[in-house]
Amino acid sequence: MAEFSLIEVIRERCVVIRDDVRLGIGDDGAVLAVPADHELVVSTDTLVAGVHFPLQTAPFDIGWKALAVNLSDLAAMGANPAWATLALTMPSADAAWVEKFADGFAALAREHRLALVGGDTTRGPLSITITVFGFVPAGAAITRAGAIPGDWICVTGTIGDAAAGLGCVQARDDDAHELIGRLNRPIPRIAAGLLLRENASAAIDISDGLLADLGHICARSGVGAELCVDDLPMSAAFAEYADAPTRQDLQLAGGDDYELCFTVAPDCAPALLWDLAQSGCAATRIGQIVVGDEIILSDDSGAQIEMPERGWEHFA
Amino acid sequence: MAEFSLIEVIRERCVVIRDDVRLGIGDDGAVLAVPADHELVVSTDTLVAGVHFPLQTAPFDIGWKALAVNLSDLAAMGANPAWATLALTMPSADAAWVEKFADGFAALAREHRLALVGGDTTRGPLSITITVFGFVPAGAAITRAGAIPGDWICVTGTIGDAAAGLGCVQARDDDAHELIGRLNRPIPRIAAGLLLRENASAAIDISDGLLADLGHICARSGVGAELCVDDLPMSAAFAEYADAPTRQDLQLAGGDDYELCFTVAPDCAPALLWDLAQSGCAATRIGQIVVGDEIILSDDSGAQIEMPERGWEHFA
Repeated sequence: MAEFSLIEVIRERCVVIRDDVRLGIGDDGAVLAVPADHELVVSTDTLVAGVHFPLQTAPFDIGWKALAVNLSDLAAMGANPAWATLALTMPSADAAWVEKFADGFAALAREHRLALVGGDTTRGPLSITITVFGFVPAGAAITRAGAIPGDWICVTGTIGDAAAGLGCVQARDDDAHELIGRLNRPIPRIAAGLLLRENASAAIDISDGLLADLGHICARSGVGAELCVDDLPMSAAFAEYADAPTRQDLQLAGGDDYELCFTVAPDCAPALLWDLAQSGCAATRIGQIVVGDEIILSDDSGAQIEMPERGWEHFA
Repeated sequence: MAEFSLIEVIRERCVVIRDDVRLGIGDDGAVLAVPADHELVVSTDTLVAGVHFPLQTAPFDIGWKALAVNLSDLAAMGANPAWATLALTMPSADAAWVEKFADGFAALAREHRLALVGGDTTRGPLSITITVFGFVPAGAAITRAGAIPGDWICVTGTIGDAAAGLGCVQARDDDAHELIGRLNRPIPRIAAGLLLRENASAAIDISDGLLADLGHICARSGVGAELCVDDLPMSAAFAEYADAPTRQDLQLAGGDDYELCFTVAPDCAPALLWDLAQSGCAATRIGQIVVGDEIILSDDSGAQIEMPERGWEHFA
């Protein structure tokens, strides 16, 4: 199976027609039109087999997740997804594998009317690099840099599930469908990101772990944060997964949830949380931005508690 | 050395300030502005160690070449380079290696005022995926689809050098600087691409070999081609490298030259070739587009000659 037919397999599963794609796959480059008065938001993420997903992950889930982690970055910027390129490196041209991979990619792409506009297939150890493109009205992108003392700190959905799901995969507990599903098929919070664009002061997606990612907001905004660990939202499946100290570590330092962590001024916060809940993506207040450069953890009683290890860094 | 400092090493070597980069590296995504009345041209290419470059290639050259092969796609579309993202996967965080890699990338990026706007560094077997972004006036991109019977077929520069350079590397003939230089530091023909935009009917860059790449123009344009193998331009170093039959195979089926193959109507051709020569990137007529769907080879005497193997396909 030649490179060109591999691309065809992927392309025919990803047919999303968009007027702004003037020329799609099949030439030296794609030709694309950004709408007037809008800016382009671009993000790139690589997934390496055995590093970013377990080796035994189903190809459908790999295709889904590779796109989802990229769309999650667009969500954190408040961008509307439009296009993607896909660079797929694989050890051999396994058509059945590629079909399932493409099905997973395409299932998520169709949900967001995302067009695949280019890519490259090469021979080598399995890895996937996707670049996604979205739009924001000029000047409207949410960044990590706008948090100010007094802002509420909130997260969408529940956190810790994906890290628990990884534990289940490693323990070969294949019945933990809900937690493993959170690991393998994360939902990029695109609609929530669009709601945040009007009101949030800063946002980031939780890929490396809550403390690491909130730390990026603090560093870029020049502020500190206070978190109440008892306020971290958890799913019922997660609550049953482990004891309280383990759960707390997973919620603070586990990654891969792809929920949004954002900050919002106190006077805008209740309306924003209401709108998010109405949209089907409830968010929870978990703390507040303070003067300083540290993240301080406390529990319900107000007692300060010890900091666990931070989220992971590749090469760390 | 953590992921974030690796990105810093690369970023500080690639400082190109552009007004159209509203937000660069350091957030969930870059925010970019495409100029009014222009379209965006996007291309992605992956280089895998041992597949797309010899394992012993110097890191500076890997950085240069990874960007060059991508810029070459923009050249073939007639686009002006603007931005790039870089996804670098490497087995360990070797700061000295990354510095030299970044120096090679940055040397070429600065020549084209290209800004690095995002990326990802991950742990895994060495591979590099770059996505490049350029601009064309709306509707002006050159495609592979416009060749018509009677058009001249031309190539820029000389061809076969990179394939000969690979032969020298494999034979450990380290003195063949010129040929090895063509392999390791290809020159993307950006300025030539801009001249072609006004006049060429179709264009492609020669990455997989002349026959394979001209074959793409023929397939997309619904035409055939006649090539005169004695007209294929060659460098002095290449002329000395091998005997005539070997040279012919390398020129027809060797890849990695990153010259442009283009077609142009006969009445526009002389002026275009003149302009290209004046710009310092001479081009040569090597044949003509004909009715049909085949590429026919002949020599100076007009005798038809046998077709060598086509250029390579990954997974073929």
